[in-house]
Amino acid sequence: MAVSWQLGDIAARLGGRVIGDAGTRVEAVATLEHAGPQHISFLTNSKYRAQLAATAAAAVILGEDDADATSLPRIISENPYAYFAKVSGLLNPLPSVPAGIHPSAVVAADADIHPSASIAATAVIGARARIGAESIVGEGCVVGEGTRIGSRARLYPNVTIYHGCVIGDDFIAHSGVVIGSDGFGFAMEAGRWIKIPQVGRVVIGNDVEVGANTTIDRGALDDTVIEDGVKLDNQIQIAHNVRIGAHTAIAGCVGIAGSASIGRYCRIGGSAGILGHLQIADHVEISSFTLIGKSIREAGSYSGIYPFSPNDDWRRNAVHLRHLDGMAKRLKALEKQIEILKEDNSEGEAR
Amino acid sequence: MAVSWQLGDIAARLGGRVIGDAGTRVEAVATLEHAGPQHISFLTNSKYRAQLAATAAAAVILGEDDADATSLPRIISENPYAYFAKVSGLLNPLPSVPAGIHPSAVVAADADIHPSASIAATAVIGARARIGAESIVGEGCVVGEGTRIGSRARLYPNVTIYHGCVIGDDFIAHSGVVIGSDGFGFAMEAGRWIKIPQVGRVVIGNDVEVGANTTIDRGALDDTVIEDGVKLDNQIQIAHNVRIGAHTAIAGCVGIAGSASIGRYCRIGGSAGILGHLQIADHVEISSFTLIGKSIREAGSYSGIYPFSPNDDWRRNAVHLRHLDGMAKRLKALEKQIEILKEDNSEGEAR
Amino acid sequence: MAVSWQLGDIAARLGGRVIGDAGTRVEAVATLEHAGPQHISFLTNSKYRAQLAATAAAAVILGEDDADATSLPRIISENPYAYFAKVSGLLNPLPSVPAGIHPSAVVAADADIHPSASIAATAVIGARARIGAESIVGEGCVVGEGTRIGSRARLYPNVTIYHGCVIGDDFIAHSGVVIGSDGFGFAMEAGRWIKIPQVGRVVIGNDVEVGANTTIDRGALDDTVIEDGVKLDNQIQIAHNVRIGAHTAIAGCVGIAGSASIGRYCRIGGSAGILGHLQIADHVEISSFTLIGKSIREAGSYSGIYPFSPNDDWRRNAVHLRHLDGMAKRLKALEKQIEILKEDNSEGEAR
Repeated sequence: MAVSWQLGDIAARLGGRVIGDAGTRVEAVATLEHAGPQHISFLTNSKYRAQLAATAAAAVILGEDDADATSLPRIISENPYAYFAKVSGLLNPLPSVPAGIHPSAVVAADADIHPSASIAATAVIGARARIGAESIVGEGCVVGEGTRIGSRARLYPNVTIYHGCVIGDDFIAHSGVVIGSDGFGFAMEAGRWIKIPQVGRVVIGNDVEVGANTTIDRGALDDTVIEDGVKLDNQIQIAHNVRIGAHTAIAGCVGIAGSASIGRYCRIGGSAGILGHLQIADHVEISSFTLIGKSIREAGSYSGIYPFSPNDDWRRNAVHLRHLDGMAKRLKALEKQIEILKEDNSEGEAR
Repeated sequence: MAVSWQLGDIAARLGGRVIGDAGTRVEAVATLEHAGPQHISFLTNSKYRAQLAATAAAAVILGEDDADATSLPRIISENPYAYFAKVSGLLNPLPSVPAGIHPSAVVAADADIHPSASIAATAVIGARARIGAESIVGEGCVVGEGTRIGSRARLYPNVTIYHGCVIGDDFIAHSGVVIGSDGFGFAMEAGRWIKIPQVGRVVIGNDVEVGANTTIDRGALDDTVIEDGVKLDNQIQIAHNVRIGAHTAIAGCVGIAGSASIGRYCRIGGSAGILGHLQIADHVEISSFTLIGKSIREAGSYSGIYPFSPNDDWRRNAVHLRHLDGMAKRLKALEKQIEILKEDNSEGEAR
Repeated sequence: MAVSWQLGDIAARLGGRVIGDAGTRVEAVATLEHAGPQHISFLTNSKYRAQLAATAAAAVILGEDDADATSLPRIISENPYAYFAKVSGLLNPLPSVPAGIHPSAVVAADADIHPSASIAATAVIGARARIGAESIVGEGCVVGEGTRIGSRARLYPNVTIYHGCVIGDDFIAHSGVVIGSDGFGFAMEAGRWIKIPQVGRVVIGNDVEVGANTTIDRGALDDTVIEDGVKLDNQIQIAHNVRIGAHTAIAGCVGIAGSASIGRYCRIGGSAGILGHLQIADHVEISSFTLIGKSIREAGSYSGIYPFSPNDDWRRNAVHLRHLDGMAKRLKALEKQIEILKEDNSEGEAR
């Protein structure tokens, strides 16, 4: 089961410079702390050099600055963390899944399934749907009518994609993902909500990954758009008509309200929120637990987190938040009174 | 595929007053900005009149105040947004789904499936469950023993409804919805949690919609109740024994803790929370990201959001939140001292 | 359908002391308020004694301090809430599910399914997976290759467990749960995210319950670990390499970021968050809606919640949060000026 690679072969494949025995064999990646003699490990931050000294790894991946920090066989890379990611990919190839349609899958007669694709047990593919080359549709997945999925996609079990969506190549969706559900749109009339049909689509670019139980609603009239290279963690909610710019990464439990437009290369922390119709510039970082309540026009890092304390401290302090405006006014009044007193005194002295 | 309607026929069906050529044909709805000559668009806010002037739509829906704001063929309605919702419904009829039970579905012999209902591939219907007229149960859905669902329900794929629940007419549940899972109830004894059986049901009224991956737990002893016309967005968590009043709308990612009781016609913003056992009056609006920590007895709008800033500003300001009580006390002390100084001065002057 | 028990038989089974007619028969549990003559109810808090006086229950469960608070037949227990939980378990036995594999289930030839286990319709069990004695795998569940699940597990419908995970005895997973999905790990290189293979597992101890739509990611290199007796509510997100100590209970919608380590017997409120790589001591309580942004070394209760108010009050007060640092500085300046004025005055008086 274990694949073994020589350092020299790894470097031939992925680049980087080998120092020490290029014939050293490694089977798996591990942290410096837990590595054994079959492992290759990595150092991405010089502050862990002590762990490097103590590691039992057979080899390590290091940046240029740490090139001489060990006598172990090593590969030197400009970006040791990305290099480690690729080595791990080499050593952990995805299990090959046989092409073809499982007999228990239910595939519409006019669905277009590439012969190299794999449709697992109990999956259901709707009319006129298209599944590209080498794509894998897991057990219990449902792909709606007319939805098109590119090549090398991987839908883990129990993913649901509604009708009429368009998804690029190299897509990964984890279990429980829902794509193309109706956006939340209603008009109030005479005390009742009238449903607004959600007739847009979800359009997803290439190289996108979507974490478990994340939901992406279809557009109301226009489309919801996820651009190339976007990475979404688990349990994220993307409302109708949102646009997420290329290569933006969003951590778990974030909610993005309708028609918000997020830039490229943004990073959004866990459980953050973005209100509807806002614009977020490229290269914006948003901290966990922060609600963005107005548009952000400039790259940078933004936060809005209430700091935690022991309960009693929190209670004693938080009670004043309902009186901050009063405090501000009293402060201003004091400043005025002080000025008067100072004048009085200097007049007094002058007398 | 495109259904086309004349304005006059729309008004005959939905009411409203046509101005201009009642024979104008429209096929689809679109925003003013994106509409073309096959589209009907709408204006719900006079501030977008500039878009109205520029639109390529064939016709528009307007309120009385904007009746003369264009020379395009138009329908005038008291509530143009609700009118648009209904027109969109006319122009986007739901695809008809053939009645009957797919051969791959697994339906208990004593389940009561209306002949006009549709049970899709791989769906499972438990013993004694009842599915009403014209209801559609999607692929991969599971309906538990004895659960009753009314007429014209639509369960999108991969919805799970546990045993013994009761659901009204015109119900919509999006994919990944779970209804009737156990509430979170345990008693601690000798260092271990003892599970409290959750023996209540979930009871849902008519005309309720539930968004993707939303969860509604069954009651512990009594029932969890969702009244008529309630609209729930995606990824909402409704705990055991909660009651949600009729026509209340709740945005995505909200959590409502056990036994909370929400009034009628409330609107709750995304990622808000409501603690257990609280009462919320009718017509209450709660902002996104706000935790409601005590009951609200009066209609109105309520917020509790920490404002965001650039990181450095946030950090510089937030550090004082742990010392607010001290600041309040120092402010009070200053006020006292000023009083003393003022008295001293006036005495000094009087001397 | 109703099982009926005499008080004496209950006490013989569960302990506790009967006062009054031990032959009193009860069929079900109910709250004091809703109980009828077939019910046994319970009082866990003396402040509800008025309800005890008014109840129509046939019998009640009381603590020692309330032993004489009623003349109804009663069982006295040191821990009436835990006792009630057990009585409810007696009166609400889980419906027995026939052992065996449903013909529509898809089970790998080399999966190891205990003969007393039950695999429901449309479930899929992967190669070399193991399902223990008396375990129940619900409809639409997918258990990945090589995953091992202990005895008496109950997977409700549409649960997904990825390959290679290890789960103990008496496990309960509610619908929509995803276990073993990839952690959120990427390295940025030349403007693109490189996926870091997630090769750890999820390892879950005995007596763990996981609520609907909760997600637990597999470890990146090492494992994600959930210890014995942990109780997770709905819609919780547990990231890769998290460890949750034994008997910790976590309420709905909580997010725990990667490599965080939570102690034993902690209680975490709804929608709280814990940032990555933090350590939380044993016996820590965290309030709802609180973000823990640094490690907690001592047992205790911690909060960080922004209090809510009517909108106008909130707005008027919250605006000052962006100027708190300025307020603090002005306060300090005032204190200095007051000191100077006081000195001046006392000098003045001394003159």
